[in-house]
Amino acid sequence: MATIFTKIINGEIPCYKIAETDDFFAFLDINPNAKGHTLCIPKKEVDKLFDLDEATFNGLMAFSRKVAKAIEKAIPCNRVGLTVIGLEVPHAHVHLIPLNAMDDAKFTKKENLTTEQFKEAAEAIKSYL
Amino acid sequence: MATIFTKIINGEIPCYKIAETDDFFAFLDINPNAKGHTLCIPKKEVDKLFDLDEATFNGLMAFSRKVAKAIEKAIPCNRVGLTVIGLEVPHAHVHLIPLNAMDDAKFTKKENLTTEQFKEAAEAIKSYL
Repeated sequence: MATIFTKIINGEIPCYKIAETDDFFAFLDINPNAKGHTLCIPKKEVDKLFDLDEATFNGLMAFSRKVAKAIEKAIPCNRVGLTVIGLEVPHAHVHLIPLNAMDDAKFTKKENLTTEQFKEAAEAIKSYL
Repeated sequence: MATIFTKIINGEIPCYKIAETDDFFAFLDINPNAKGHTLCIPKKEVDKLFDLDEATFNGLMAFSRKVAKAIEKAIPCNRVGLTVIGLEVPHAHVHLIPLNAMDDAKFTKKENLTTEQFKEAAEAIKSYL
């Protein structure tokens, strides 16, 4: 069965899309730690990050770096943090999170954004890609 | 002034070393979230992950992948998570953390290990490199 992320890639579930290549896809996390919190995923469905083949892993990290640099320009923050956990959705995904304090990295404090705020964040990030 | 991590690389501060190349260094986190929690760093002192030049960033990620795959073989866990925060030590570092539950990824629950347990973890990981 397709993961929720594959359904997002296929457009069956809507998202605030940030970037797409032949192999990778980036979109805003709908339950963000902070405004601009973005997920980068391989289109290939693989559960665990370190089970990705070497080329896909390297490609995912290079893709995430480009997106992160755009987030750092678009969203006021100390820096963008990168986290891969993966215990909830069995489709490897890189969290890129604008950080100002350690709490922003802990997945305990969540930000409630309006549709308008999500759209603003996505447009701002995309303008630097 | 040299960062604490540069002092570790130079042997001025002791560590449980896991791996070293010309450009990168891996050692056990002394305040681990879980047994086997490892830090991978570039020898070059750069504060923010996404300020690393492209080759160093890609090299650090490829180095971290090799170490992570060894941790997954050596330490019983669901998978190894990867996190870069960087608000405390101004020298980019990748946390590789054996995860069994979401709490292991949050930097709130810490594991007290004896010297013997650190040595065991380091030897086990190194045996798969």
